[in-house]
Amino acid sequence: MIPPRLKFTGKDLKVLDQRLLPDRVHYLTARNAKETAAAIKDMALRGAPLIGCAAADGFALEMRRLRPSSSEELGRLAVKTADLLKAARPTAVALFYAADRMLSRALQFAAEHPGRFPPADREKFLKLAEREARLITAEDEAACLAMGRHGAALLPKNCVVMTHCNAGALATMGIGTAVGVITTAHKAGKVKHAYSCETRPYLQGARLTIWELMREGVPSELITDNMAAHIIKTCGVNAIVVGADRIAANGDTANKIGTYGLAVIAKHHKIPFYVAAPTPTVDLKARSGDDIVIEERSCGEVTFVKGKRIAPKNVRVRHPAFDVTPASLITAIVTEKGAIRRPTAASVKKHLAS
Amino acid sequence: MIPPRLKFTGKDLKVLDQRLLPDRVHYLTARNAKETAAAIKDMALRGAPLIGCAAADGFALEMRRLRPSSSEELGRLAVKTADLLKAARPTAVALFYAADRMLSRALQFAAEHPGRFPPADREKFLKLAEREARLITAEDEAACLAMGRHGAALLPKNCVVMTHCNAGALATMGIGTAVGVITTAHKAGKVKHAYSCETRPYLQGARLTIWELMREGVPSELITDNMAAHIIKTCGVNAIVVGADRIAANGDTANKIGTYGLAVIAKHHKIPFYVAAPTPTVDLKARSGDDIVIEERSCGEVTFVKGKRIAPKNVRVRHPAFDVTPASLITAIVTEKGAIRRPTAASVKKHLAS
Repeated sequence: MIPPRLKFTGKDLKVLDQRLLPDRVHYLTARNAKETAAAIKDMALRGAPLIGCAAADGFALEMRRLRPSSSEELGRLAVKTADLLKAARPTAVALFYAADRMLSRALQFAAEHPGRFPPADREKFLKLAEREARLITAEDEAACLAMGRHGAALLPKNCVVMTHCNAGALATMGIGTAVGVITTAHKAGKVKHAYSCETRPYLQGARLTIWELMREGVPSELITDNMAAHIIKTCGVNAIVVGADRIAANGDTANKIGTYGLAVIAKHHKIPFYVAAPTPTVDLKARSGDDIVIEERSCGEVTFVKGKRIAPKNVRVRHPAFDVTPASLITAIVTEKGAIRRPTAASVKKHLAS
Repeated sequence: MIPPRLKFTGKDLKVLDQRLLPDRVHYLTARNAKETAAAIKDMALRGAPLIGCAAADGFALEMRRLRPSSSEELGRLAVKTADLLKAARPTAVALFYAADRMLSRALQFAAEHPGRFPPADREKFLKLAEREARLITAEDEAACLAMGRHGAALLPKNCVVMTHCNAGALATMGIGTAVGVITTAHKAGKVKHAYSCETRPYLQGARLTIWELMREGVPSELITDNMAAHIIKTCGVNAIVVGADRIAANGDTANKIGTYGLAVIAKHHKIPFYVAAPTPTVDLKARSGDDIVIEERSCGEVTFVKGKRIAPKNVRVRHPAFDVTPASLITAIVTEKGAIRRPTAASVKKHLAS
């Protein structure tokens, strides 16, 4: 089994430090929104759905720490807390979704309880915030199971499947999105083999995904990202499944850098390319991929591997952490509600309303 | 300037240990064919044309060490030496070309000098072998300059070019093949920007190519392999140039793993994909890419970076060192003789005969 990614104690949040995986299972402690945001920013935890769950927990912790005493104070502190959390990373919409949902609950409570809070109401709000955070986690767990079932149904028998980055249990509070599809299909006896792309520069595939697949007993091999096309051509790969950090209203999908290239290669080989992500990943405010901000991270994450320099000093480096795969290259987006085949603005809208 | 890759002294061969670049400039000494083969196998030196030059030098050294005393002995030792060198790596045809050319010169000498050699003939053969090795090196230098000129002519003005692996000075005894095209175009004021893919697992792009581009003053950035599609889409890349380890009679090209995926991505973006390689890279015995043996190297080269483990213990790993790009994805193959546009079996044959 995969160790718990987050343990919310009510007083603090224990965060599995994924930077140390697979070598060490070690938990950091975040006691407030600032420390939660730092854990997200520094990638102690990562994965869009998990970032959302952590942000909700961080919000609840911050409220308990600050104990707002009036509707005015609650409104001010809730906005500030949501902003602090949302600034941690710019691309994954689950972070914005969770922080804004917590904020919205807080503002609703403030509106319903104007003026100074009696002590009972203060505690009532704190409980409410914690319950909302627990609900976000529970919804994520349930969404993973549903995506696993819907996605596994799409895969062929004797499937040889490839995935990129880590959209597994470690990226969620449940069984994962893309990896959840693979492990669910594996349990149904449908998976012949799985390939995990190592996913430079942060190596989520080499450190996390292949580790999950090994623990779940899925026959699998690790490859470098640049082997994907050769392996697809020569090893009978017949499906690719990835996660998503943000899906625009028209189905364009931002996901870990390298996803777009894989989608192009899948199209060339006429194999299906699936995106598995819960509905909160859809950002209707982004009309297309052009509206999605792509996070540019530090050069050092490219030029150093485990503290060892791998490129010349003073080298110039690009480090976009995500790319955008146009909807036209996506066979289906799988959410907890089912599959959106050949996604378009119309079919995405219809799916969300269903 | 790039340090000399090989220094043939007559008594031994000093080999720039490229595994230590860019951190250290250090030379190994190979005194015979066995040590030369080991340096090739262990990738102290790499790059198809350079491997060929080193093999010729190793052959000449071995002959001087063994000093064959008769045509029979020369024939036997020459076959053995060529076999030893050719076993070092299976994919780069330049190795076979150079070893077989040295063998052929030896067998020719044996045929012309039957029986026991007088001392003067022994020395005459050793000089002849050394001259042949020097000629192979000189031909490589000249081929690089010619390829640079022919290739640069194909690039557009304000070119934004991408390359993969290292097909630079470090892969040859001259200015390089693909990188030679870029630096020649740069000197002609045609290059706006160059991108070097880091080229996992061995990181030839991060350690060698970007280092060469920086030393040559070419405006350039390093990217991870999986950024290529995103950078091509968003940064105006308008040409890709790579080297080759073996080109089949129909133009199918084996090159460093990742090349095929780049070619697919280039086609999707409708940008030209050029292969620069000297004519000895063409293997007419391989009718198509299907006839090319792809070297599978050790798992450790994938799971360890600079001695640090990056994946779980007992992980299963694939490590094909090369892939095959079908001729249909290649805009032109550039040799020292010029460009073969839209290569086919007929146009490759005609080009070689020209």
